[in-house]
Amino acid sequence: MSRIAPLSGFPEWLPAQRIVEQHVLDEVRRVFELHGFASLETRAVEPLEQLLRKGEIDKEVYVVRRIHAGDDESADLGLHFDLTVPFARYVLQHAGHLEFPFRRYQIQKVWRGERPQEGRFREFTQADIDVVGRDTLAFHHEVEVALVMAEAFRALPMPPALILVNNRKLAEGFYRGLGAADPAAVLRAVDKLDKIGPEAVGALLREEAGLSGAAAASCLALAQIRTPDTSFVAQVRALGVTHPLLDEGLAELAAVVGACAERYPGAVVADLKIARGLDYYTGTVYETQLVGHEAVGSICSGGRYDSLASDGRTTYPGVGISLGVTRLVSVLLSHGLVEASRSVPTCVLVAVADEAGRAGSEAVAASLRARGVPTEVAPKADKYGKQIRYADRRGIPYVWFPGNAEPLKDIRSGAQVAADPETWLPPDSDRHPRVVRASLLETSSTRGDDDDSSRDARK
Amino acid sequence: MSRIAPLSGFPEWLPAQRIVEQHVLDEVRRVFELHGFASLETRAVEPLEQLLRKGEIDKEVYVVRRIHAGDDESADLGLHFDLTVPFARYVLQHAGHLEFPFRRYQIQKVWRGERPQEGRFREFTQADIDVVGRDTLAFHHEVEVALVMAEAFRALPMPPALILVNNRKLAEGFYRGLGAADPAAVLRAVDKLDKIGPEAVGALLREEAGLSGAAAASCLALAQIRTPDTSFVAQVRALGVTHPLLDEGLAELAAVVGACAERYPGAVVADLKIARGLDYYTGTVYETQLVGHEAVGSICSGGRYDSLASDGRTTYPGVGISLGVTRLVSVLLSHGLVEASRSVPTCVLVAVADEAGRAGSEAVAASLRARGVPTEVAPKADKYGKQIRYADRRGIPYVWFPGNAEPLKDIRSGAQVAADPETWLPPDSDRHPRVVRASLLETSSTRGDDDDSSRDARK
Repeated sequence: MSRIAPLSGFPEWLPAQRIVEQHVLDEVRRVFELHGFASLETRAVEPLEQLLRKGEIDKEVYVVRRIHAGDDESADLGLHFDLTVPFARYVLQHAGHLEFPFRRYQIQKVWRGERPQEGRFREFTQADIDVVGRDTLAFHHEVEVALVMAEAFRALPMPPALILVNNRKLAEGFYRGLGAADPAAVLRAVDKLDKIGPEAVGALLREEAGLSGAAAASCLALAQIRTPDTSFVAQVRALGVTHPLLDEGLAELAAVVGACAERYPGAVVADLKIARGLDYYTGTVYETQLVGHEAVGSICSGGRYDSLASDGRTTYPGVGISLGVTRLVSVLLSHGLVEASRSVPTCVLVAVADEAGRAGSEAVAASLRARGVPTEVAPKADKYGKQIRYADRRGIPYVWFPGNAEPLKDIRSGAQVAADPETWLPPDSDRHPRVVRASLLETSSTRGDDDDSSRDARK
Repeated sequence: MSRIAPLSGFPEWLPAQRIVEQHVLDEVRRVFELHGFASLETRAVEPLEQLLRKGEIDKEVYVVRRIHAGDDESADLGLHFDLTVPFARYVLQHAGHLEFPFRRYQIQKVWRGERPQEGRFREFTQADIDVVGRDTLAFHHEVEVALVMAEAFRALPMPPALILVNNRKLAEGFYRGLGAADPAAVLRAVDKLDKIGPEAVGALLREEAGLSGAAAASCLALAQIRTPDTSFVAQVRALGVTHPLLDEGLAELAAVVGACAERYPGAVVADLKIARGLDYYTGTVYETQLVGHEAVGSICSGGRYDSLASDGRTTYPGVGISLGVTRLVSVLLSHGLVEASRSVPTCVLVAVADEAGRAGSEAVAASLRARGVPTEVAPKADKYGKQIRYADRRGIPYVWFPGNAEPLKDIRSGAQVAADPETWLPPDSDRHPRVVRASLLETSSTRGDDDDSSRDARK
């Protein structure tokens, strides 16, 4: 094997890091299922023509082709770059077999053929939830998906996340109320605020969106409103613009922010500069900052779309939000924010005194496993010191010495005690690897804490 | 969206089918972790030159290329066609950060660009376990991986599986004992037994492998030996061939078959015609038949390899076995062998009397979720009959009517009882969807069985 270098943009984790990622995936799945979202997976490829319909993303698509494809086979497949395009196709394809409103979650890899740059992945895992209706979809689902993601964030050993919410109706109604002829052009200009600053956006608004200086100033004033509660409503009203669509947007955004602020204080802000580039959003839009790590960009984004998919007869409106699992896990690992308590699932290593006695050690292991205790048997009848080091290097907490009157050694404390392989159970906190905020693991393992809630440092 | 047809070879499941697949994946993971295998994922792509080193498979590789790749970018990546090639690369790349023997499982999609044909998938999920040593690896791991897979089969709601085992040393020793100059050529001929029959193989053995008629007949006699216990040893001895490598192979195969037959009677047979095409196997080889569905081919295969990977200085021997999850799930679903008790994770639907009272229904739902009960709130304040049908169509067992003196209705029995949202818990068997052998689901739901062991019909 000559080429064993990493590939830029294709992250891979070491075993202990993978345990952190698995914990994130498990918790996210648990929360999604707790709210009745059903799991789906779609194939990794879609017809290229479907992928390329989204103009902005076409430069990022990976084309897939059989190496010995016949001349009659066109290169017509690409790897999906998100989970929304395949989900829209899935809904149309299987609509006759689905019950609407259809609530699904989807946790899969996606691929983007971007030129490598720091913090950009070419392969990464997303975790999406969407609620999709047939013909209609009630507004309250726009509140719901934000609450579900806020609950997921609370369940994860991560820094606080701040969900930034805006509403397309609010923005469009405001622009229309100002007399803007092309509200989409206004939105595109405002979307550049973080990149080019207010002066340049003001120029764009006047020159490209055709606004007066006063109207452009109003748009910039709107974009600067940011409140952790529903007080944004009064601030918008104070700008003196009126339009029925603005009223509707203000009411919806107040409902989302009010409900989130009540249930998860500090988890959400109304941020009226949030635009989200994608054309298809029509109501609430979401972005999420990881507090203290804002520079990595949004870790969780989405919004309401009145037409996720349509077959000409039926239209499927939806609302969805997508967690960037790889981006999040990458931040947690690269900043040392979380740690796994061990690099293997194993809770107990059963020692082997000599190879002739291996069957006895296997019997102890089988007994422990029958009660759900992850157990390995030592690979070799080395001296016990070496077998203990085998466990220690992997973070396995217990070594079992079959035939010994006190067979069970906790190698962290050194304590060795009597135990029956037919009945012994580890403390719940030791059964599986724990994944905790880095500073907490040290403390809790020092004091031999067996409180399982330390799996989740923020509960 | 104009093209919404399925793509041949890229299976996708409906929500209730996905619950079956998830159950298989969860159980497999549980068993692997119970035995101390650590999870890994590798990137989906490998350098094409690495993938093409395996001559037999080169026609099946999917090449991946950025749609707007510059002329300076060669098309040098392909999608992995198994999990062994990427794992070997991972071991070399990260050897300095791994502890050996290294026990890992890997559950991921793989892609093969085969021409579509019945039962062949172009995208499918594999679940692999491997144990890899540095320089050496003890034989007992060849027993272990078979036992772990046998345990996984027992945990799954599937027909019995029969693991067919052979040993490369046994075959090679036998051929050498017969005086074969090119044992590999003999093996290649014997590997064709199922396809072309004993006469044609006999001809190949004489003409291509250069065996005498008597030696060819001995090889065919060896290939016909198949025993559910260690009695194959005497049958091989009776053929009168002797060689030290044959002795070693007989002892190893007897150890694998003996241990499996003792722990899981009927789970394993010694089948001396099993060859496995791949060159790199050097000891035990495994295939697995799904009893009653042998025509689908092996659902779980693998073997021992003395050099999984080598960097010139260090060699990494290993043993691994790979479960074809998609093939298995596809058989289970297409033959109606298993069913999920519902198509959603939801255990309780909380009804909504009117939209003004939605917050009260949300509060009940939050209370149930806080104790881990998957709960949805009705999407619309329809008449209660319609809300009950919403639950019924998805298989949700309970509907909760907030404010009612007897708020909890089991819609299967129609019984409606008093219950407190702060304390009520469903029977364990109702909390999550059950996945059982098809004939059993009917029985157990008819009699309202609340025994959680019915999740696994074969325990």
